[in-house]
Amino acid sequence: MKYSFIETKQDSDFPIQNLPYGIVQPSDLSPRVGTAIGDYVLDLSIIDEAGLLNGTGAEGKNIFSASSLNPFMALGLPVWKAVREKLQYLLDQETADLRDNEELRAKAFYPQSKVRMLLPVQIGDYTDFYASKEHATNVGTMFRGKDNALMPNWKHVPIGYHGRASSIVLSGTDVRRPLGQTKPAHAEAPVFGPTAQLDFELEMGWFIGPGNQLGQPISVDQAEDQVFGMVLVNDWSARDIQSWEYQPLGPFLAKNFATSISPWVVPFEALEPFRQAGPVQDPEPLAYLKQKKNGAFNINLEVYLKPENDSEETQITKTNFNYMYWSVAQQVAHHTITGCNLRPGDMHASGTISGLERSERGSMLELTWRGAEPLELKNGDKRTWIEDGDELIIRGYCQGDGYRIGFGEVRGTVLPALSEADILGVEKAIN
Amino acid sequence: MKYSFIETKQDSDFPIQNLPYGIVQPSDLSPRVGTAIGDYVLDLSIIDEAGLLNGTGAEGKNIFSASSLNPFMALGLPVWKAVREKLQYLLDQETADLRDNEELRAKAFYPQSKVRMLLPVQIGDYTDFYASKEHATNVGTMFRGKDNALMPNWKHVPIGYHGRASSIVLSGTDVRRPLGQTKPAHAEAPVFGPTAQLDFELEMGWFIGPGNQLGQPISVDQAEDQVFGMVLVNDWSARDIQSWEYQPLGPFLAKNFATSISPWVVPFEALEPFRQAGPVQDPEPLAYLKQKKNGAFNINLEVYLKPENDSEETQITKTNFNYMYWSVAQQVAHHTITGCNLRPGDMHASGTISGLERSERGSMLELTWRGAEPLELKNGDKRTWIEDGDELIIRGYCQGDGYRIGFGEVRGTVLPALSEADILGVEKAIN
Repeated sequence: MKYSFIETKQDSDFPIQNLPYGIVQPSDLSPRVGTAIGDYVLDLSIIDEAGLLNGTGAEGKNIFSASSLNPFMALGLPVWKAVREKLQYLLDQETADLRDNEELRAKAFYPQSKVRMLLPVQIGDYTDFYASKEHATNVGTMFRGKDNALMPNWKHVPIGYHGRASSIVLSGTDVRRPLGQTKPAHAEAPVFGPTAQLDFELEMGWFIGPGNQLGQPISVDQAEDQVFGMVLVNDWSARDIQSWEYQPLGPFLAKNFATSISPWVVPFEALEPFRQAGPVQDPEPLAYLKQKKNGAFNINLEVYLKPENDSEETQITKTNFNYMYWSVAQQVAHHTITGCNLRPGDMHASGTISGLERSERGSMLELTWRGAEPLELKNGDKRTWIEDGDELIIRGYCQGDGYRIGFGEVRGTVLPALSEADILGVEKAIN
Repeated sequence: MKYSFIETKQDSDFPIQNLPYGIVQPSDLSPRVGTAIGDYVLDLSIIDEAGLLNGTGAEGKNIFSASSLNPFMALGLPVWKAVREKLQYLLDQETADLRDNEELRAKAFYPQSKVRMLLPVQIGDYTDFYASKEHATNVGTMFRGKDNALMPNWKHVPIGYHGRASSIVLSGTDVRRPLGQTKPAHAEAPVFGPTAQLDFELEMGWFIGPGNQLGQPISVDQAEDQVFGMVLVNDWSARDIQSWEYQPLGPFLAKNFATSISPWVVPFEALEPFRQAGPVQDPEPLAYLKQKKNGAFNINLEVYLKPENDSEETQITKTNFNYMYWSVAQQVAHHTITGCNLRPGDMHASGTISGLERSERGSMLELTWRGAEPLELKNGDKRTWIEDGDELIIRGYCQGDGYRIGFGEVRGTVLPALSEADILGVEKAIN
């Protein structure tokens, strides 16, 4: 096995096999591209300047002094591969170039705790899919009954919808409980106020590389070449707003107030050892969705909830990305079959990832069966939905033999809603 | 009435009362911001350079040499007002500054026919609403029957959904008929192929100015201050793809292959003389949607269809923007009530605008009642849906006393679909 001269523990998220990309801001310096290795960050703009990335096709273009990964994403797979290979070479314990250059090492590495992480990508369009059969079945059962749980289109069409890009925020950003319209079950008319059913959704997201020209679909067997890398996603949702608004055009305000992502983008190539067969697809998909390779990946996913003023996290979900019925490649191919153009920096997310067991469900909606079966936390508190002050944490990793490809985490704490007076002005609110 | 020293005919779309903004590219020059006046374009980067925009708050910042209107949009209402006022002063027949400066005039004006128009805005997020009661009722009647035509939420919630920003194209861009999955009414399984129900949607769009911080809603009475200006929109739709895919997350591929917009962005302020009361809203909207001012605008809208190899256009729709049940301000306020952040360059569209009469319907779906009542064109051809080679043209204007505030037009011609072999590779297609 390969090791780096930067020591990484066996359970580190960031061994030399991973090398995720992020936008880091060391104190007093401008944002730049870094890669995580053990507890450190390697500053790619510094080693590019030193000529160590020569020959990759990315060198000397200010790609790594950019404040987003978009310019790097636009370069495409051959360059991504060359840079990754070069980084694995440079960080190898056997390679002297960087290891023995004390001056450069002092400039190029920062402890992760000393840098600020920024949103890694300037996201153009964000598309959210609905690709877990277990999730779609659970939600369908709750909303339409067991017999109509899965819509007739679900096993033919990788269902998705356009999400809101502007409100995608970095892990650690607080999330304000949204206000909105809801309609209590037996009320005559809707009411206005803070959502009473704030939820998380455990998802994974991927970023698109060069993309395609408008009018030119990406075939399913070429789709993975467009995938730069992956992150953890929490697609915060307000279920009471959602159930009142979603007919007939789908979720809108229920999900536009915040979507949190993890800061490190794990290269799609790093997931290759964890590729496996996904669920059997029956009926067979149409030709444009038939993928030759296995399209699933074995990624462990965990969700934790930490109440305010409590240091202890309770694990509330443990599931796996390999439950996804539709693969990443199938979702990308489907998205573009009409000719829709994808651009560097577009984000796709999987939709909520739920497994077969109750403990594997990826949302409060499913875990508490729409509030009917509260969760018990370690401190004895109960939860039907997420409460003010709660912090939600998602973690994920692929377990290799003696190493991990980790995604780090995405976390967010819920702030209380604004008052009606805050937003309408006092005069209007009291009339 | 005010007149310009640049002659404009009474039925010109672009008198001195209008002054829409666009991104123009004169031959051999870089893209820049221009305003339309009569048959000419005034190059704002040239007159800014000459100091004529001093004192507006936009001067000397390269705002007008940008390749999109976004930097201008980000400056906000006081600057938009100052620039507009200054332009109306400079173009007035009584003002000598520009009129009598022959050298500057020669540099600053181009015939419109000599410049290339570009997409005026770098669009971040695109949101499409569904704000015409007549359209929602027509569609609801066709899909769910007369008794369930309007969903219970419709008169309470300005229904909208996130659209696809990457495929928004400029007027004149050809539109390729999309491929996709459809499910014929009595078929066992879906089939793959070109849409057989290609449609247009007559809409209007508006662009957002500075926007708001995440977590801070925009109140309904301040919402119009965020609206930079408006364009004509054709939200191309594939109805057979839509009806198979849209449950439960709304339209996705059916509308992501192209949305066409007109090139000139008419300042929201230019519409002020055409403000009027909209339809009575009953039941009363919730407090956050109650607008003090009248929120409707009297804008005439027309749709024409021109078959291939035919020089004659047939008018197929004539309606008005004042049919909109939900106002622009209400839609903006609703969008942000959860705290969702809008950014400069975001585009909102109204949804299809239909009126009470059959001739006022804003889509083929409604005009032909889902294909049951074909339209007859001037050349005797019939249409149930849009055919390959057809050109669709939308025009719009406010009729003042002796002048027009025109939106110009948005046009697009339909190209035949790609073949399955084109997209899958020949090997796969014959297997």
